[in-house]
Amino acid sequence: MNWTERFSADAHAIQASEIRELLKVLADPAILSFAGGIPDANLFPLAEINRVRSIIEADPAVDRNSLQYSQTEGYAPLRDWIAASHSTPDIALAQDNVLVTNGAQQSLTLLAAALIDGGAPIAVARPTYLGALQVFETRRARFVMVETDDDGILIDSLEAAFQQGVKLLYTVPDFQNPGGMTIPEDRRRQMIALAHRYGVPILEDIAYRTLYYDAPPPPTLLSLEGAFLGEGVWQTSGLVVQIGTASKSLMPGLRVGWTVAPRDLLDKLVVLKQANDLHTSTFNQMLAYELATTILEAHTDMLRRTYRARRDAMVDTLRTHLPNSAHFSAPKGGMFVWLTLPPGLDGKALLEKALVEEKIAFVPGAAFHADGSGKNTLRLSFSTCPPAVIAEAMERLSNLIKREAQRLTHL
Amino acid sequence: MNWTERFSADAHAIQASEIRELLKVLADPAILSFAGGIPDANLFPLAEINRVRSIIEADPAVDRNSLQYSQTEGYAPLRDWIAASHSTPDIALAQDNVLVTNGAQQSLTLLAAALIDGGAPIAVARPTYLGALQVFETRRARFVMVETDDDGILIDSLEAAFQQGVKLLYTVPDFQNPGGMTIPEDRRRQMIALAHRYGVPILEDIAYRTLYYDAPPPPTLLSLEGAFLGEGVWQTSGLVVQIGTASKSLMPGLRVGWTVAPRDLLDKLVVLKQANDLHTSTFNQMLAYELATTILEAHTDMLRRTYRARRDAMVDTLRTHLPNSAHFSAPKGGMFVWLTLPPGLDGKALLEKALVEEKIAFVPGAAFHADGSGKNTLRLSFSTCPPAVIAEAMERLSNLIKREAQRLTHL
Repeated sequence: MNWTERFSADAHAIQASEIRELLKVLADPAILSFAGGIPDANLFPLAEINRVRSIIEADPAVDRNSLQYSQTEGYAPLRDWIAASHSTPDIALAQDNVLVTNGAQQSLTLLAAALIDGGAPIAVARPTYLGALQVFETRRARFVMVETDDDGILIDSLEAAFQQGVKLLYTVPDFQNPGGMTIPEDRRRQMIALAHRYGVPILEDIAYRTLYYDAPPPPTLLSLEGAFLGEGVWQTSGLVVQIGTASKSLMPGLRVGWTVAPRDLLDKLVVLKQANDLHTSTFNQMLAYELATTILEAHTDMLRRTYRARRDAMVDTLRTHLPNSAHFSAPKGGMFVWLTLPPGLDGKALLEKALVEEKIAFVPGAAFHADGSGKNTLRLSFSTCPPAVIAEAMERLSNLIKREAQRLTHL
Repeated sequence: MNWTERFSADAHAIQASEIRELLKVLADPAILSFAGGIPDANLFPLAEINRVRSIIEADPAVDRNSLQYSQTEGYAPLRDWIAASHSTPDIALAQDNVLVTNGAQQSLTLLAAALIDGGAPIAVARPTYLGALQVFETRRARFVMVETDDDGILIDSLEAAFQQGVKLLYTVPDFQNPGGMTIPEDRRRQMIALAHRYGVPILEDIAYRTLYYDAPPPPTLLSLEGAFLGEGVWQTSGLVVQIGTASKSLMPGLRVGWTVAPRDLLDKLVVLKQANDLHTSTFNQMLAYELATTILEAHTDMLRRTYRARRDAMVDTLRTHLPNSAHFSAPKGGMFVWLTLPPGLDGKALLEKALVEEKIAFVPGAAFHADGSGKNTLRLSFSTCPPAVIAEAMERLSNLIKREAQRLTHL
């Protein structure tokens, strides 16, 4: 009996991720990790969460509803809040434009199921979010790489991809995971124009959007598409589908995210969600809704202040100690610094050394490249450690990189 | 812009379910519903649930973990409990045989992704669980119907399906949804022997297994396969994969279920789960674990007593008042009575009449038939109403069926 022989072609197409294997090492508490793209659990608003839990518990009818089967589309008040808070000057979102999912990851799963046939070409940035690549692999998508610079997607490269007939573009325009890049407004406008010239849907993942540490990011692709199309047109002619999550601004363990899409697409996503897992935990949706409508703004302010200091500690230390032959660009938000190593160095080999010699973990960059390129890159997350710890560790990592670069020169 | 033109072949293959459209009518509180296959929320152990929530809240480190990203495989103590409580005399399950999912529905989704290529033939009973049909539709499976009688799957029909080269059999051996049938032990043994003769995996869905009202059901297919193979052989040669859920014994809103599979298959399911939605809500898994290891037995005893009285009320009333030309078989557990209408009557037409004339809802049986047959059947759920309400409504429904049958005779 060999199960492998029985696997579907889709199942064969996806393998265990490198990050996943890596994270097993992180169970060792001696390792200082800059690997995970995760919020700092010490910043979770426990008192407020417990207050909301008590409110739910105080009314047995509400508590029962929180534990019973519920609508596939999601908890109606949460859908209303998402619709209201993500509407744009030209796009008045309604409840039936919103599907609640188990985090942005499931939004991607359902969109991939709705829009991608086995082997179909899709456009992704070099680099891009690993979890998205995994979803698309389960549909056996053919990846068409869109090149980037420190400002994200390059328009010429995007047009070349669109000319190849890709079925969609997946993009994280704000403080990208893993690259940290934010696409400027002019490029965003060009992306929308190109999408409509070639008729290609864009999946806009706004997971990190509210975590800005300097100025707020440029308008969303959704908002710019609204302006491009004119008021009220998006429901019938929109190509931008937006994916959001409570994982970065509130708590990932809730597994609450959402998709905002024109109704015709959303209806199909609802049917696919129903087949997938019926609905998302009702209790968790209630919790997300209550927090979103009470403390979210103040909580996000606190996150911005806290993560800003961590971003600054990482960027300043790397600027001071990294050799000139390494490159990185300071992110204006999010959780990640993306680093290109001095020529000849390999992210994975460096990780092995960093784990043993410095007890420091990060993610080698190749994992974020659909075509296996990016071996001389790595991703550093600044979200989970205090500034002083970050500064000390980044100095040691910089010195390791210096030593390794020098060793290469002397070979 | 027409989204329908952009849908994948898989997305085209699945349509909104009839039950789903039906349940929208149920928002009307004047309708007495025997439609939903759902537990009675009034029986949820709220006090115990709130006690567990307080335990989690009392330790901030635990509370933070309950809200943070966690392992795709699931909460380790819950996996251990599932492994221990579902082991059989010949199959010692370990943690790495268990994947926690968002309910049995997601277990099916991941198994279908792992094992079914577009258009592949699979075997399902006539009738079978609608949600399973929906999952398999998203893989464009070709359904090979296995005939049943009041004791479930007919062995000759199963062998004929296996001879057609089906990729798997999906079955609910205990108190089936929707048919209420329980497969006797001798048939179960024959199913195992056939599975091994033809090399066909069996997905055994045990959602209703602990809800027995007379004697406990026969041994699981998993247990019988263990005996068939001998001790310790299942890990390498097992064909039975078991799907379980906390939805019927505890609360569906948790969205906690699981898959028990040989390691080689489970490893692939874990990768597919990671791509699908990263992991299941940590808090909900903790809650399920704490309840499972404290009150589950006593709670299940209470559910058995309560649902038994409701089953009896439904069965006794139908026996007294249904015309002889209708057929049903008393279920020994679960939530459903399956009814075959007098010749010439149609379940859907009867529902329309029942809603208007009697304010009673149920599910027309065709929805549970992969091939659109079963138009003269319907499913009645006895799980949500007290016995007196059931008896009164079933008398009215029986009289409606009598009237409709007489009307046909007089045409």
